[in-house]
Amino acid sequence: MPSNAGITAPNWPAAGPSSPTASTPASGKASSPLGRKARSSSAGDGAAPAVTTVAGYLLTRLAEAGVISVFGVPGDYNLGLLDAIAARPSMEWIGMATEQGAGYAADSYARLRGLGALVTTFGVGELSAMNAVAGAYAESVPVVHIVGTPAVSARRTGTTAHHNLPGSDFGHFARMAAEITAAQADLRAGVAPGDEIDRVLRVALRTSRPVYLAIPADVAGASVPPPSGPLLAADQEDGAGPAVLAAFADHARRVLSAARSASVLVGHLAARHRVTTQVRELAAAGDLPVAVLSTAKGEFPESDPRFTGLYAGAASAKAVRLAIEDTDVLITIGVTLADTVTGGGTHQLPGARRIDLAPSRATIGDTVYPGIGLRQAMAVLTPAVRASRIPPRTDLADLTETPPPAAPADPAGPLTQRHLWASLQDFLRPSDLVIADQGTAFYGAAGLTLPDEATLMGQPLWASIGWTLPAALGASLAAPGLRVVLIIGDGAFQQTASELGTMLAHGVAPVVIVLSNGGYTIERAIHHPSAPYHHIPSWDWAGLPATVAKDTFTVSRRAVTTGDFEAALRSASGDTGLPILIEAVLGWDDAPPLLQDLARVLAGRNNYATR
Amino acid sequence: MPSNAGITAPNWPAAGPSSPTASTPASGKASSPLGRKARSSSAGDGAAPAVTTVAGYLLTRLAEAGVISVFGVPGDYNLGLLDAIAARPSMEWIGMATEQGAGYAADSYARLRGLGALVTTFGVGELSAMNAVAGAYAESVPVVHIVGTPAVSARRTGTTAHHNLPGSDFGHFARMAAEITAAQADLRAGVAPGDEIDRVLRVALRTSRPVYLAIPADVAGASVPPPSGPLLAADQEDGAGPAVLAAFADHARRVLSAARSASVLVGHLAARHRVTTQVRELAAAGDLPVAVLSTAKGEFPESDPRFTGLYAGAASAKAVRLAIEDTDVLITIGVTLADTVTGGGTHQLPGARRIDLAPSRATIGDTVYPGIGLRQAMAVLTPAVRASRIPPRTDLADLTETPPPAAPADPAGPLTQRHLWASLQDFLRPSDLVIADQGTAFYGAAGLTLPDEATLMGQPLWASIGWTLPAALGASLAAPGLRVVLIIGDGAFQQTASELGTMLAHGVAPVVIVLSNGGYTIERAIHHPSAPYHHIPSWDWAGLPATVAKDTFTVSRRAVTTGDFEAALRSASGDTGLPILIEAVLGWDDAPPLLQDLARVLAGRNNYATR
Repeated sequence: MPSNAGITAPNWPAAGPSSPTASTPASGKASSPLGRKARSSSAGDGAAPAVTTVAGYLLTRLAEAGVISVFGVPGDYNLGLLDAIAARPSMEWIGMATEQGAGYAADSYARLRGLGALVTTFGVGELSAMNAVAGAYAESVPVVHIVGTPAVSARRTGTTAHHNLPGSDFGHFARMAAEITAAQADLRAGVAPGDEIDRVLRVALRTSRPVYLAIPADVAGASVPPPSGPLLAADQEDGAGPAVLAAFADHARRVLSAARSASVLVGHLAARHRVTTQVRELAAAGDLPVAVLSTAKGEFPESDPRFTGLYAGAASAKAVRLAIEDTDVLITIGVTLADTVTGGGTHQLPGARRIDLAPSRATIGDTVYPGIGLRQAMAVLTPAVRASRIPPRTDLADLTETPPPAAPADPAGPLTQRHLWASLQDFLRPSDLVIADQGTAFYGAAGLTLPDEATLMGQPLWASIGWTLPAALGASLAAPGLRVVLIIGDGAFQQTASELGTMLAHGVAPVVIVLSNGGYTIERAIHHPSAPYHHIPSWDWAGLPATVAKDTFTVSRRAVTTGDFEAALRSASGDTGLPILIEAVLGWDDAPPLLQDLARVLAGRNNYATR
Repeated sequence: MPSNAGITAPNWPAAGPSSPTASTPASGKASSPLGRKARSSSAGDGAAPAVTTVAGYLLTRLAEAGVISVFGVPGDYNLGLLDAIAARPSMEWIGMATEQGAGYAADSYARLRGLGALVTTFGVGELSAMNAVAGAYAESVPVVHIVGTPAVSARRTGTTAHHNLPGSDFGHFARMAAEITAAQADLRAGVAPGDEIDRVLRVALRTSRPVYLAIPADVAGASVPPPSGPLLAADQEDGAGPAVLAAFADHARRVLSAARSASVLVGHLAARHRVTTQVRELAAAGDLPVAVLSTAKGEFPESDPRFTGLYAGAASAKAVRLAIEDTDVLITIGVTLADTVTGGGTHQLPGARRIDLAPSRATIGDTVYPGIGLRQAMAVLTPAVRASRIPPRTDLADLTETPPPAAPADPAGPLTQRHLWASLQDFLRPSDLVIADQGTAFYGAAGLTLPDEATLMGQPLWASIGWTLPAALGASLAAPGLRVVLIIGDGAFQQTASELGTMLAHGVAPVVIVLSNGGYTIERAIHHPSAPYHHIPSWDWAGLPATVAKDTFTVSRRAVTTGDFEAALRSASGDTGLPILIEAVLGWDDAPPLLQDLARVLAGRNNYATR
């Protein structure tokens, strides 16, 4: 979870068990400054009823986990679920234009609130959401995919139901979902649904992964007892036992006490498993240099003197490379070394004296300590670092490159990526939530210096273009106190453009910047830049808000010159409370340096150069 | 394949083997009047080369099967495939806004030309297309889903690649695809790719189902020998042997010679397996009454005196029910009795004296004759019908209901579904291709009387809303000589709206009618009509073309009254060659009678009424 002020999610232990801060699940909500959505979300919306329905049980559990907004698209197999949501004052149905949009919105919602939920219908609906659900798996986000399926009573042998493949096998799509979710259940009225629902939700929360829940139309309304205890109880937690933990602690102390230098590299799983505060404590305990992967940008304060910068393999700044690659001991926390975040796999991390903390495993050199959660590991590591008195790193400060001052922009000159990012740097405010789509947007944003408590949200591992537009809606509903700055390419925008209508209909007011360069510039950077298959049709981006939200007043600007863009940003700074869309017209092959470095490596790996 | 004039696809035998009309695969192309796309598609674009690449081999086979337009979205893992398409003069890359749109377009393209193809990238791309591919399976359409996957050389153990789930298992998505495709292959440079490519394509063509073909980035360009023979050769066909066929013929003759009456019911598999001409011959041979399911609307000439009407279970007209349910012998041809096309499963077909012809099986009463293809079965059945001299049916004519003349419309009165369909009835011309989205659009269109050679294209079995917009593009490219009339609800349109930009950028000129009623009226008809979850955001539909295709001139009209709508249709009739979009504003709960009947039954089956 990003560390923004203004967001409070239930403070549950995630995969890292034995947390000293674990609290009653719903307790975090009482102080939640959720603005227009500041509603009670206590489990039963009043006194606990003696009996509920399967749908009611599920919604109670979702509310307990912090879910207020539920995303989806209606279909005749899920209307009973939607009735249950509509009947619950603490919940809000967010009807999306597409199921993929619902999945994307639930993903960003979950990143901010600890759990997200989407409801789709059997077959047509759920398959449209599968890219989104797989993305939540790849990026480690706990999303509950709830699917309304045909009534069990109507599943006659040999009869074809609409939204199914021919025949009477109703399991095709659930089997597909099993590939991309961490747990699955197909509810039946006869089986105690609480057991199944709770089992699946616990996996989502503990592993920070998506789960799949099929509810037949004639099961959603079946009567069941309401939940009888909390969804996650402290005594149900698991983790490494004392022997493993002691061995890990001993090994870590030996490595650290001998260290001539040590650094920290932070990945996205630190935020997903809620240990960003612990990361700061660890760094402070040893005054250690800290770098982040782009997946964790903003999870460590960039004004902190220990913050060294963004690590992206060979594309990193010199000081960052030195801090991470040329250190005696490297501590990695929640890191996934995917090609898109390591400059195409050009990372060179020290091998032997490396301490890797993963969600359910710690590793020192070649020794694996299974079962150790991130929180558990850091509770051991921080005092060990403090006791080690590792010599401070003095060689990095001199290397810190101050970027050359941007040439004074000619206001009448064409807008460039370089000026765009420089202007955006000035535009950002503390606590902003920058959401940047995979492509020039993400790699440009990753190069920004973030103000205090500002974070960057993106999807660099799964890298599905178009993700950010619905994600901006999910984030706006999850954390209505924050200003959302959405930066998205035109090719990406076309993937999910209908959801701009959904977003504006819900009254949220993001700053939307469309990088308008006629196509897929990330692909152009990788291969054959002038190939016509990189081009897309020409849209009137500034006209789009009025077209898809005809009852909403939106400010639209088209910026062709540097001066246009700066004027547009000024109008967005006015706190009018109105949504604003800025079309930033850019050169078709203009890209930020981080992306150019990455693209060079990816192209070589695809072997296209050999043909 | 619909029977429109102006479309010629390779006249291959599909699943029905031993076809007397089988011909050299590419022979149908010579006479193809494909207008702007009338290019050579001979296998090698000139003299056959001595060596080709894996991608080149595949494209040669696709061209051989009639594919000119290939749909998809670029991604870094598929750029080598796209290079190969761009280099081939006989092929056209149709870059879509979304992979789902690409799948939908390839589906309609395949319905008209016999095969369709889409290219996506690993993970993010292919999963976005899965709803479309599953829809092709449900509706029995041969679509080749070609996926560019990570280079085999780059699949290092333990390394996470972008667009994959964490880890080094690269098989998640192929396993998902196996649930919704009839054959799969994951190509390798070392394996003779022709064997794998040919195997998979033959399954697509023989079964009329989608198939999945994964091509790693470093395999697409590997050198291989070109195809050495035709993809489908007559001697490779299979079907029932002479003994089974003789037994079937004997049984059919016995049943038919004793018949006091006989009727024919036609489903979509007749068209998919290319026996619509044979259906007409069969009906003529015995002067038998013929009804069609909505899946086969337009596949039998509606001006033919033997055409009785649309069969939709209890929602059928009286004469049709009598013809189909109260007949001594019923011959069904390529029928799938899904709930959405049988008035919710209210069909009552005669049991014992029924002859069912399916793509690879014939059944008489309880006796199954395995392996008999549709074409094979009809070659036996037609002479048997002719010899049987079944008494003509005289009781149906009196029952044919002439619909009461529509009350003269008040031009200033609000537009209603009733007047809309009456006006559209007058608007249709011979050979029109009506594409109607699932919802009020499809069930309204199914009630039209189609002019000669006009057909209705829809997706009533899979029933994924939004399908028709990309399908209209696919159809327009497959059969550029036809006028496409697209009728789509607003909720459906929002699912795939970006593809309007793609469609207009390609210069096709459909008549697009948006049924604008603020949401999902099909769901309103099923359950809780006034529930807010049926509503959608308000779009300026008439403004959409100018927004998503700013360089294309399009005519737009908004029709609130009956007079508006008729005037809009008049401007669409003028053959301006321009695309036209008409927003038809309708009451939010106004629906055609066929849908109201269906919705009543579906609601009961979902058991929502009991809560």
